[in-house]
Amino acid sequence: MSDAADAISRALVLRRRPNGLPGPHDFEWRETPLPAPGPGEVLTRTLFLSIDPYMRGRLSDRPSYAPSVGIGEVMTGECVGRVIASADPGFAPGDVVLGTRGWQTHALAKAKNLVKLPPSGPGVAPYSAYLGVLGMPGTTAYSGMKDIGRPQAGETVVISAAAGAVGSVAGQLAKRAGARVVGIAGGSAKCLYVQEELGFDACIDHRADDLDAALAETCPKGVDVYFENVGGAVQRAVFAALAPFARVVMCGMVAQYNDASFADGPNLGFVVGKRVTIQGMIVSDKPERFAEWRSLASPWVADGSLAWREDMHDGLESAPAALAAVLRGGNFGKCVVRVARE
Amino acid sequence: MSDAADAISRALVLRRRPNGLPGPHDFEWRETPLPAPGPGEVLTRTLFLSIDPYMRGRLSDRPSYAPSVGIGEVMTGECVGRVIASADPGFAPGDVVLGTRGWQTHALAKAKNLVKLPPSGPGVAPYSAYLGVLGMPGTTAYSGMKDIGRPQAGETVVISAAAGAVGSVAGQLAKRAGARVVGIAGGSAKCLYVQEELGFDACIDHRADDLDAALAETCPKGVDVYFENVGGAVQRAVFAALAPFARVVMCGMVAQYNDASFADGPNLGFVVGKRVTIQGMIVSDKPERFAEWRSLASPWVADGSLAWREDMHDGLESAPAALAAVLRGGNFGKCVVRVARE
Repeated sequence: MSDAADAISRALVLRRRPNGLPGPHDFEWRETPLPAPGPGEVLTRTLFLSIDPYMRGRLSDRPSYAPSVGIGEVMTGECVGRVIASADPGFAPGDVVLGTRGWQTHALAKAKNLVKLPPSGPGVAPYSAYLGVLGMPGTTAYSGMKDIGRPQAGETVVISAAAGAVGSVAGQLAKRAGARVVGIAGGSAKCLYVQEELGFDACIDHRADDLDAALAETCPKGVDVYFENVGGAVQRAVFAALAPFARVVMCGMVAQYNDASFADGPNLGFVVGKRVTIQGMIVSDKPERFAEWRSLASPWVADGSLAWREDMHDGLESAPAALAAVLRGGNFGKCVVRVARE
Repeated sequence: MSDAADAISRALVLRRRPNGLPGPHDFEWRETPLPAPGPGEVLTRTLFLSIDPYMRGRLSDRPSYAPSVGIGEVMTGECVGRVIASADPGFAPGDVVLGTRGWQTHALAKAKNLVKLPPSGPGVAPYSAYLGVLGMPGTTAYSGMKDIGRPQAGETVVISAAAGAVGSVAGQLAKRAGARVVGIAGGSAKCLYVQEELGFDACIDHRADDLDAALAETCPKGVDVYFENVGGAVQRAVFAALAPFARVVMCGMVAQYNDASFADGPNLGFVVGKRVTIQGMIVSDKPERFAEWRSLASPWVADGSLAWREDMHDGLESAPAALAAVLRGGNFGKCVVRVARE
């Protein structure tokens, strides 16, 4: 059922737990014959693999909300793939689907976990967008703002990692809600992008600016909503600038994902006096948000009113370096690996 | 309109901002002739003055949710008083009222801020209880649990300062909700009281026990709700023991109220992975909770099903030392100063 070029699946498996930033030597190749799908299963050729900060947690054996990837196991990750064999009536060879997983050229998946994507063409989002602006990162921003941040017209919203896949959407949603939106990003190119392309009202360069002074200047009435992707010094500065009744969406703290032990955080006395709410989230807790967001945002992607940007890497072999780049802020846009041509 | 013994009002005014723990020398006496109430006003003789941890904040010039008491101003505090003169049709001499303020023998108050208390007698709470179990501390516990903690049957709830005016009520409310309740208190006498009189399932002595080990033993499934009154090492230990989707009611951090600068807090990475909510509260944000709580809890006080305890001090001159005791955990029960005999 699969074509001749697809007799073998190649995968990157975890060779050892990384010490600090992960790199190519932490993974190794494994080749296996292509499996045949059993009833209710679908075999896909991977087109695009998403690279996301959360992956660092899966490489560690530190306790987490999700199990680690074991040594010798295929590294996990969300994919878009093309069906090459199907044993489920809902899918046929040629269909493009979201929901397969793994750093591998082919994936066997249960049909019930897959979403069939609309054919590409004018006025339709490209397939890779379902890994970013329309996918898990976009849904994370949507759920975080809808369920926790709830920005109101006239409020001040601060977004860290503002040029990233989650932050860029979170900030644009806050703008649509009528809030004043200030981004924090690393470097002048990203800050320019955040202001010019994403339409934020201001953007602070955490590599160049005095954070406290820049927050005081750009958020004179204090910060009503903080969408936290970073942690560390940025967290400390924004927490100090929070307004009474502020909401903090705790989405991630990528600045410390490579640390062997975690530094202390800010003193939380202010939480009482300012009646702040600090709330953690994992996007998969509200799975209904994925379809909601695809349906809400697809027209905005089609008409160009929701800006997004990709940092595309070619070839599965580029995945480890791409992940390292994401973890040190070296990407510019949603990091995606093109595993095969469509 | 006032009787002969009440020609002069004596008040404790702030003499200087305390350095660390406040004491008698931070206050001084001021005597003034009794004022006559204007229209809509009521003059009371203070019967009981409440001493509460939040008062430390009013003695400092650190920015806060409420203004500081100025040097030379009467120290603030909630009181129960007996009306000795009234220029409002709703109140008459002899009435006992809640809602006057100040470390002073007499207070002039606007009638609209006062609540008339039921006459004392069998089956009725004593007047002083309206400063504790039925008053601001009780309402704080009620609002914190109702609006933030929301303990469910079978959940594990931890209460710091468990023998205190707020913690004792918070824990009993969690027991009524069917939760397993573990207190944290200082010293074996308080721990015994928390278990035997308040009916908590366990109580950890933060002066004697290894906090991490004791939490692991008493909360084997993790902590679903933490009612935070203390901060410091206790906060750090309980945060490390939180269960997924835990709620933290940030009511106070009394362990640091006398500190000139605040120590760092725990790293907040766990908030994301465990989807924890940490939320600050000030009881006055929901003023409707006061009357709700009085109406809900008065029968429980009358029938003895809600346990409470007072630490009564005699004479307004004892107020500074009583406050110092509260701030170092030296009180045992709700701290009240009896300013005049009923």
